[in-house]
Amino acid sequence: MAGNTFGTLFKVTTWGESHGTGLGAVIDGCPPGIELTEEMIQAELERRRPGKGGATSPRKEPDRVRIMSGTFRPDDGGCELTTGTPISLVIMNKDAHSKSYNHLQNVFRPGHGDLTYQSKYGIRDHRGGGRASARETAARVAAGAVAGRLLAEYSMNVQAYTVALGGISADKRDLKVVSENRLFCPDSEAAARMEERIAEVRSLGDTLGGIVEIRAVCPPGLGEPVFDKLDGELARALMSIGAVKGVEIGAGFAAASMLGSENNDAISPAGFLGNNSGGILAGISSGEHLIIRVAVKPIPSIHKEQQTVNIDNEPVSIKVGGRHDISAIPRIIPVCEAMVRLTLADHLLRQLPILHVRETLRNHGV
Amino acid sequence: MAGNTFGTLFKVTTWGESHGTGLGAVIDGCPPGIELTEEMIQAELERRRPGKGGATSPRKEPDRVRIMSGTFRPDDGGCELTTGTPISLVIMNKDAHSKSYNHLQNVFRPGHGDLTYQSKYGIRDHRGGGRASARETAARVAAGAVAGRLLAEYSMNVQAYTVALGGISADKRDLKVVSENRLFCPDSEAAARMEERIAEVRSLGDTLGGIVEIRAVCPPGLGEPVFDKLDGELARALMSIGAVKGVEIGAGFAAASMLGSENNDAISPAGFLGNNSGGILAGISSGEHLIIRVAVKPIPSIHKEQQTVNIDNEPVSIKVGGRHDISAIPRIIPVCEAMVRLTLADHLLRQLPILHVRETLRNHGV
Amino acid sequence: MAGNTFGTLFKVTTWGESHGTGLGAVIDGCPPGIELTEEMIQAELERRRPGKGGATSPRKEPDRVRIMSGTFRPDDGGCELTTGTPISLVIMNKDAHSKSYNHLQNVFRPGHGDLTYQSKYGIRDHRGGGRASARETAARVAAGAVAGRLLAEYSMNVQAYTVALGGISADKRDLKVVSENRLFCPDSEAAARMEERIAEVRSLGDTLGGIVEIRAVCPPGLGEPVFDKLDGELARALMSIGAVKGVEIGAGFAAASMLGSENNDAISPAGFLGNNSGGILAGISSGEHLIIRVAVKPIPSIHKEQQTVNIDNEPVSIKVGGRHDISAIPRIIPVCEAMVRLTLADHLLRQLPILHVRETLRNHGV
Amino acid sequence: MAGNTFGTLFKVTTWGESHGTGLGAVIDGCPPGIELTEEMIQAELERRRPGKGGATSPRKEPDRVRIMSGTFRPDDGGCELTTGTPISLVIMNKDAHSKSYNHLQNVFRPGHGDLTYQSKYGIRDHRGGGRASARETAARVAAGAVAGRLLAEYSMNVQAYTVALGGISADKRDLKVVSENRLFCPDSEAAARMEERIAEVRSLGDTLGGIVEIRAVCPPGLGEPVFDKLDGELARALMSIGAVKGVEIGAGFAAASMLGSENNDAISPAGFLGNNSGGILAGISSGEHLIIRVAVKPIPSIHKEQQTVNIDNEPVSIKVGGRHDISAIPRIIPVCEAMVRLTLADHLLRQLPILHVRETLRNHGV
Repeated sequence: MAGNTFGTLFKVTTWGESHGTGLGAVIDGCPPGIELTEEMIQAELERRRPGKGGATSPRKEPDRVRIMSGTFRPDDGGCELTTGTPISLVIMNKDAHSKSYNHLQNVFRPGHGDLTYQSKYGIRDHRGGGRASARETAARVAAGAVAGRLLAEYSMNVQAYTVALGGISADKRDLKVVSENRLFCPDSEAAARMEERIAEVRSLGDTLGGIVEIRAVCPPGLGEPVFDKLDGELARALMSIGAVKGVEIGAGFAAASMLGSENNDAISPAGFLGNNSGGILAGISSGEHLIIRVAVKPIPSIHKEQQTVNIDNEPVSIKVGGRHDISAIPRIIPVCEAMVRLTLADHLLRQLPILHVRETLRNHGV
Repeated sequence: MAGNTFGTLFKVTTWGESHGTGLGAVIDGCPPGIELTEEMIQAELERRRPGKGGATSPRKEPDRVRIMSGTFRPDDGGCELTTGTPISLVIMNKDAHSKSYNHLQNVFRPGHGDLTYQSKYGIRDHRGGGRASARETAARVAAGAVAGRLLAEYSMNVQAYTVALGGISADKRDLKVVSENRLFCPDSEAAARMEERIAEVRSLGDTLGGIVEIRAVCPPGLGEPVFDKLDGELARALMSIGAVKGVEIGAGFAAASMLGSENNDAISPAGFLGNNSGGILAGISSGEHLIIRVAVKPIPSIHKEQQTVNIDNEPVSIKVGGRHDISAIPRIIPVCEAMVRLTLADHLLRQLPILHVRETLRNHGV
Repeated sequence: MAGNTFGTLFKVTTWGESHGTGLGAVIDGCPPGIELTEEMIQAELERRRPGKGGATSPRKEPDRVRIMSGTFRPDDGGCELTTGTPISLVIMNKDAHSKSYNHLQNVFRPGHGDLTYQSKYGIRDHRGGGRASARETAARVAAGAVAGRLLAEYSMNVQAYTVALGGISADKRDLKVVSENRLFCPDSEAAARMEERIAEVRSLGDTLGGIVEIRAVCPPGLGEPVFDKLDGELARALMSIGAVKGVEIGAGFAAASMLGSENNDAISPAGFLGNNSGGILAGISSGEHLIIRVAVKPIPSIHKEQQTVNIDNEPVSIKVGGRHDISAIPRIIPVCEAMVRLTLADHLLRQLPILHVRETLRNHGV
Repeated sequence: MAGNTFGTLFKVTTWGESHGTGLGAVIDGCPPGIELTEEMIQAELERRRPGKGGATSPRKEPDRVRIMSGTFRPDDGGCELTTGTPISLVIMNKDAHSKSYNHLQNVFRPGHGDLTYQSKYGIRDHRGGGRASARETAARVAAGAVAGRLLAEYSMNVQAYTVALGGISADKRDLKVVSENRLFCPDSEAAARMEERIAEVRSLGDTLGGIVEIRAVCPPGLGEPVFDKLDGELARALMSIGAVKGVEIGAGFAAASMLGSENNDAISPAGFLGNNSGGILAGISSGEHLIIRVAVKPIPSIHKEQQTVNIDNEPVSIKVGGRHDISAIPRIIPVCEAMVRLTLADHLLRQLPILHVRETLRNHGV
């Protein structure tokens, strides 16, 4: 029960189904005094919106976010600031073609949560996947935009990009070109081949997976041993995105076949001489860039006949229609960024009391 | 702050440093009436103990666990049962050669948490890695044994085994042979080659990483969308083990290059026809076996000269002596099992209220 | 930080300011399959609404609640049921005369949270008290109505009533008459005298406090020692209502001057022979009625000149105008009920896993 | 389930039964760098120890606390400092006459938790009340002493004292004399009469209740609206002590019969001109002294025949023998202080991120 809240101090609770009235997030624990407008949040939502990019679905949701509480303009002519009280964000659903899901009410689509939701709860809102829809991540992106505002005050930032799609890998990490192609790929040439692969697979009625890498600028000292280590928290945050089936930090799975002498990052007075650790040692950030990669599975809604069962456990075959993306990439990119931002904002706040007490003790001459 | 508690209902708090007085765990939320003796816990600890297996260190800790509270023998001649109150487990440290760490007090070992602990807290117990020592996991294994007692009542179980070590992969999953070799490998022939690789690398003063797979029998319905999904929780649990740098579920990273039609597990009236999902769909267990793999990095304590800095940020070179394992495998095997047990016990308890209410409503004719 | 969530399993997060866009609650952890409609929630909100009862303010808020998520009508013609996903409730603000608060922007009203909010956050939404407004409790009442739906399935219920107001005490506990007078007083004669007192004090521009008693039907076994005892949790829940300055259980403060032999409730095969314990022993419900009383302070907004300071710490005097109640009673009555319902729903869910495991063990013949 | 942890950031988990092996506390979240020795904790335990004061039992427990983890002496000759890792405290039980409880194994003592524990868990450690024993509070006092060390760095302190016992009230608040009488009463003359009353009631085989007041020096800004208000949190903390049946803040229940104009504390440039609020407005500390009073029920173990039932629900009469106090006062005094300290330490840490961010924003010129 009760799994819809994320974070200890920067706490986000999300709600909403794909074809319900709307969806939203409540952020409890955002510090006061930070400039925050609907436009700032909207800008992030635009990057996640359906209908953008060649791999995405044609559902046309305006995804207009509204700040319902938690900000205030204290002075005439001043800017909208957070007040320290809960920030409630609401996005109304508009373009929900619920009727087109009627035939799925009693059938469990392979690769989807239909069967597991039914089995857990004994009831489910089948329309568009209900709570299990990728649409749920709009609330995460909105909340992550608020977290990003806090991180910016501490010179922290987060960027995600596509490093593999449909079996094609990016060989370069040229972050300047990430915003120049619609797959957010740091290798323009690879991006072009990925687009070809998408077109090819679209014509087959099939879908594609890929790998997203996330890089973050993070000060040392974040992460709470032993269970709330920063890498564990990031893994949970990212694995809580529906399409993600694997997470690795720094060298990740490659470390499994390295020698200790290869994997250890030597240290010099100017900093670390490598980053196999992905910026985290013993669960605490080292000050190096955080490097995380996630495996994104292919979208399970395919235009091909599949074998499954209905609610009476009778065999049926289905061909999922509707408006679907070919790949969760690139729309998952801002979602990955959001989850990393939320994790870092929470761990930043968890570290601040330690910094404050250390400063206080220093002032006492301890 | 405050990262040493794991779980929402089956809650475990651990404490202790490698060379302090001892270490332990407090389990709050274990249901009453479950048989539990020190011997049951001790049996798990034996599997993790130093001095077992060719890849492990010669430190000789008896690792005797003592149950300090939370159990009671209500009847003369009956068995020791949990009472529902906190179960406190204590393991005293005996064979702690703290003095052998004096030369490391002001030096940061590469690949260890020395630098990050110092940077976070401004102080650290350097002896044997302090809280960041792998010795900390003894408390997890002890707590996991208690979780295992609860799981057994619900016919759940968890088994971990080595599927790669030092670049050598197990080709088979013959679980019968896992207990027959000291690397817990389900492929006897691969195990023999792994042992050779260990011997070779030991002579070089270097260390090895590998991959552990965990399989669990789990009923459908466990996991709490959207942030406390079962896969996310498992990822966090396993990534909170010091040596783990990657986690994948089911097909994991391989799913990134599959087509949707390949990756989707078809469903028949007799159950799923594949398990690329690793037993989890939309964050909820499906009833199939849970399949999880973790990447284990090579042990950072190597007998080779390494470049680093001291507490005054001056360049120094060190060669880490002391008693160290060549690989975290196989001692990490029971630790992985423990973390999965703790996660499943917690999520089992979180699902029980839903089952109870559903049953109550059925009885009301709803 | 992050104090706007209540509960461990039946988790409620509220948001909203008095004169912002609206307010609401997200309920995460309501079990699936429970009938829930907007009308059911609305009925509770009607009892709390301004403009009802002689002691209340003339602000005219329709307080229409909208269920944004978490319910679904699975069958044509069937009823709206909870799905186990978060239930988001929104109430829009309509009749917010923000301008009438402009003169209070830089002045701290005595007895209000103006000064403490400013001092904590360095910023505050001064309009109508912002987040500290009693209006915030509408969200609690809405969430409490959902909790009440769950409690009803377990034959639990909660009733609050006025036992003192303006120094006049109810001598009787005639619960049948509670709904017959607008002060929810179980003593009709006392209620009449309370109304007279209200009229008298209104003409003086002053306000009144009182005492509310809450009675709940509760099964044995609820409450989690040692820190989450049921009495402690109820105390926190009720003391978190702005106007409440004291909470007592059973005999309460009167127990302080009793002898042990007087205070102990003897036990017979038919049950307890008294209820000085208020239905809770060692933090666990006994099966007797829960009896709780709360002290309600007089409303701080009075039509009399008061001495205070402004934001520059200069002495000023103010006379608070606007639309205010004479007493928090009776509108606090449904708020008290809501907080007790939320507490009991949470503790009911926390006890269900124990019941489920005990049943499972019994079936195993343990 | 899982009710033995207190706090969000300064997190304390306690364990142990009255007649088990021992009891203890794990503190997770104590900041690093604070001087802490066993002697500092022992000093607080001495104040709570049985065998002190005329109203207390003759059980002779040395109550020696041992710090098992979380402190370190970084420099030769320096002092023992906290490291930021969990502080585990253990107190072994020595003088446990378990056999003397054999006759109570199947009988439920009135006023105790025997019946409710049995009903909740289906099993209980009956010896000395098991987990429900007042002995459990030794762990709270030990943990509270650690909290006190943190508070001292922020110039905060907490003092509790007896303001009523056996119907006799202290008329004065002469805090200088509190340590001069063994009832910790701020009115020497009243203390003498209380002692007479104790002697009288002891000869009757009966027991007494009373009222304890707690005063704390606390900076403004602590407390987290709307559910984690400081007054609510204090109420929960104190009501979680077994003998406490009521809590009030500032004017408390007396406020219920005041007018608003009497109850409001006017404000001047030099501060508040009264303290009916008890130092808390809208759930946030105002900077005035916190003033809290708790109602302490008479000890239920009396040397008089009482009517009750056994485990088969048959009527029996019992006369509780053994070693018991006449009143929970004065031994409850350090327990009340401990719970207030734990609450304030937690809320201090929860406010520090806000202070840190506000300072950071100021430095950015916001």
